Amino acid sequence: MPTPTALAADPRLLAALAAARADRAGALARLVELLRIPSVSTVPEHAPDVRAAAEWVAARMRAAGLTGVRIDDTPRHPVVYGERIVDVSMPTVLIYGHYDVQPVDPLDLWQTPPFEPTERDGALYARGSSDDKGQVMANLEAIAAWEATGGLPVNVKLVIEGEEEIGSPNLDAWMRAHAHELAADVALVSDTAILAPGTPSIVYALRGLCYVEIEVEGPRRDLHSGQYGGAVANPANALCHIVDQLLDQATGRIRIPGFYDRVRPIEPAERAELARAPFDLGAFGGATGDAGGWGDADYSIVERLGARPTLDVNGLVSGWTGAGAKTVLPAKALAKVSMRLVPDQDPDEIVALITDYVATIAPPHVEVTVRNLHGARPALADRDTAAIRAAAAAYEIGFGQAPYYMREGGSIPVVALMADVLGIDTVLMGFGLPDDNLHAPNERFVLDQYERGVDTAVAFHAALAAGGGEGDDPVAARR
Amino acid sequence: MPTPTALAADPRLLAALAAARADRAGALARLVELLRIPSVSTVPEHAPDVRAAAEWVAARMRAAGLTGVRIDDTPRHPVVYGERIVDVSMPTVLIYGHYDVQPVDPLDLWQTPPFEPTERDGALYARGSSDDKGQVMANLEAIAAWEATGGLPVNVKLVIEGEEEIGSPNLDAWMRAHAHELAADVALVSDTAILAPGTPSIVYALRGLCYVEIEVEGPRRDLHSGQYGGAVANPANALCHIVDQLLDQATGRIRIPGFYDRVRPIEPAERAELARAPFDLGAFGGATGDAGGWGDADYSIVERLGARPTLDVNGLVSGWTGAGAKTVLPAKALAKVSMRLVPDQDPDEIVALITDYVATIAPPHVEVTVRNLHGARPALADRDTAAIRAAAAAYEIGFGQAPYYMREGGSIPVVALMADVLGIDTVLMGFGLPDDNLHAPNERFVLDQYERGVDTAVAFHAALAAGGGEGDDPVAARR
Repeated sequence: MPTPTALAADPRLLAALAAARADRAGALARLVELLRIPSVSTVPEHAPDVRAAAEWVAARMRAAGLTGVRIDDTPRHPVVYGERIVDVSMPTVLIYGHYDVQPVDPLDLWQTPPFEPTERDGALYARGSSDDKGQVMANLEAIAAWEATGGLPVNVKLVIEGEEEIGSPNLDAWMRAHAHELAADVALVSDTAILAPGTPSIVYALRGLCYVEIEVEGPRRDLHSGQYGGAVANPANALCHIVDQLLDQATGRIRIPGFYDRVRPIEPAERAELARAPFDLGAFGGATGDAGGWGDADYSIVERLGARPTLDVNGLVSGWTGAGAKTVLPAKALAKVSMRLVPDQDPDEIVALITDYVATIAPPHVEVTVRNLHGARPALADRDTAAIRAAAAAYEIGFGQAPYYMREGGSIPVVALMADVLGIDTVLMGFGLPDDNLHAPNERFVLDQYERGVDTAVAFHAALAAGGGEGDDPVAARR
Repeated sequence: MPTPTALAADPRLLAALAAARADRAGALARLVELLRIPSVSTVPEHAPDVRAAAEWVAARMRAAGLTGVRIDDTPRHPVVYGERIVDVSMPTVLIYGHYDVQPVDPLDLWQTPPFEPTERDGALYARGSSDDKGQVMANLEAIAAWEATGGLPVNVKLVIEGEEEIGSPNLDAWMRAHAHELAADVALVSDTAILAPGTPSIVYALRGLCYVEIEVEGPRRDLHSGQYGGAVANPANALCHIVDQLLDQATGRIRIPGFYDRVRPIEPAERAELARAPFDLGAFGGATGDAGGWGDADYSIVERLGARPTLDVNGLVSGWTGAGAKTVLPAKALAKVSMRLVPDQDPDEIVALITDYVATIAPPHVEVTVRNLHGARPALADRDTAAIRAAAAAYEIGFGQAPYYMREGGSIPVVALMADVLGIDTVLMGFGLPDDNLHAPNERFVLDQYERGVDTAVAFHAALAAGGGEGDDPVAARR
């Protein structure tokens, strides 16, 4: 296996990188085009836009040199597939991404409209710019650069779906139906952030997710709080009682019995490594307004964010939510509650635990329902593989810096899915930054990250073709 | 003082009653006209409709025979004033009502549109039909009946405001500015319900109100719950923690220190009287779905509804409230919380108590603000007055049945205001029914109640002119 330095001298790679660098303006224009399409997968009114984004991605795949490009319908939003099989004896990488985006509200907090991509201070502001259209495009531009020069040195298969932000409800069935066609040596997903500008990192662990709705129903209809207050159980009060029992505010510990039973302890070597990583406390404090950090004091902020489970209310709604006062005793109250999971927690088991617990703490005189919205299993990857080493070498070429190894707090359910259905590991080679405002107003993608991301993706194919890099991963080496 | 039987033989009263009964269809048509105007005072977009309702009421006052009718602007919605001064030596009654209405959402739960009054099963369904346009119109129709026959036997002054449903923010100043002009012997308010069809009741006590917003602010913007969850205090979780500490779900007792200090105990004689009143447990169970009743087991349901204070969440909102899942860690969370107060609790004191208490229970890492939206003092009227006896006699004529004496759970802040500013007591002579769906979808006014209400209002003037009735109020007699 060549060192990153040797790899960087490979003339085929140099040609592909030169092609990519010669077309920065084109790559930016194409990303802007895709970002203009409001492909919000959770909002039914946007279904035609989601479709339009799928068609745009398919067209771009064809233009980049992929073959067999098609749009596969599912019960909701389609999957776009394309491939380039150069030589079956070469390694095959399955590249996964998603062209759907999060909703945009609260819209009034956006400085520029979410679907009018705007360049400001070296970044492109638009919904989906970092999550995940920009990262999908970095990979597509890299393929185009290879195809425009010597041709790809590996086989690629691309799966770009439109339901990631709603929990990929149809991807499992689609992937099982096409498992034979999707056979690959490794999966590559670019849907994460690196530690900081100039400080690349490889994510080797993802949190899982268990997302539920807790609904409390009381009177048959909204009542006048003067006429009925005092003799009718209030569902909103009851909901607050239930939610408050889920989490100890003071310690940050989750109070659902059995919740921590399967949580794998963080090994001392890993804790030491996580402690060495250059965590940007300033950026964290800037985003949160609370650099001190909240939560379980037995763990560092980095550990709390990546290696420990959570419980967060994502939404509350009941009764009168407009301006001013309305004296309503509401008929029902709803909380959206999600738990981030870590190995070896299982989302189905966690749903059962919270459902049972809520039943025991629910006050009388109200009806309480726990609905499972979606779940994802946590993932912890083997770091000692050719693909991980290839990603490390690629980052070193793209960013001029060897990567750190990190856990990611978010959930990418497809990683567990591809392990289950296709039996392959995933390399998480992200190009975002921690303050890209994912799922929030003013989402952005820093343009330098886009350019370095294209270069890194170009280099990844060369490194994988060369059998991976040498690696520099002491924790993996010890395993 | 004549007995109700003697009063009922008064030829002037008989003529006025006959005039009212001859024009039932006209009275209904006029009410329908007023109900078509969507005078929702809390929604800024409806300000022109509120104005239109004021103009409609002023025109109707003039047509009914009132003089000096005018629309007085306030910083928000106008007050309509009119009077008929027959003879300064006669008793003068100040009639208060409101032409504004509650918001209509959730709109999809209305069987017919809220501003298209629809007759169904003997009732008129429309927002404001019972609260308070129908009851205002009953009084206006009564005045018109007197003026169409022998002329009113008392002096009347009418104050019909447009801000009752938003807490009458400008009525205090308006009333103080016009206190001299508003001088009267007694006030009459028809904005309450009687016990049941055919079972009239006089309300001698009202609960007060303290309505606050509790806002919890955390991170500077909505965050991705995967990226930040576990190390950032969640304002929605924190809000649930705070709200849950306000009320003991199991006992129905409010946990704010000092909250009960000024609550006047209910005397044994009054408890016995309240226990004898024919409370319609079936209607209560029908509306609430829980005939067993929730709350403080030391008190009967009737006592809990009228004579004991409450704490209810009227609204909750935070983060993602649409369909499906969004993994947001919200920047803020808001609860609207109101407390119904009983004598001798004071809303300003209660605001201070809850504000102090919330500060002590608020978890760290979040900012908590308690905002006072509005308050109203509770009222407990002297029952041994000529005006109360006149109302009792009037009910006996209008409904053929002597009234019960009841406490009302709602708040009518104007009662305390008129006592303070004008130094007069208020007679609460309501014509609604407990299941009129006030502040809820499908509000209605039973047409028989409207007709009997008109007759009762007609009779009230005759009874007041005659010096009140004999009364039949054992608790008052003992005082």
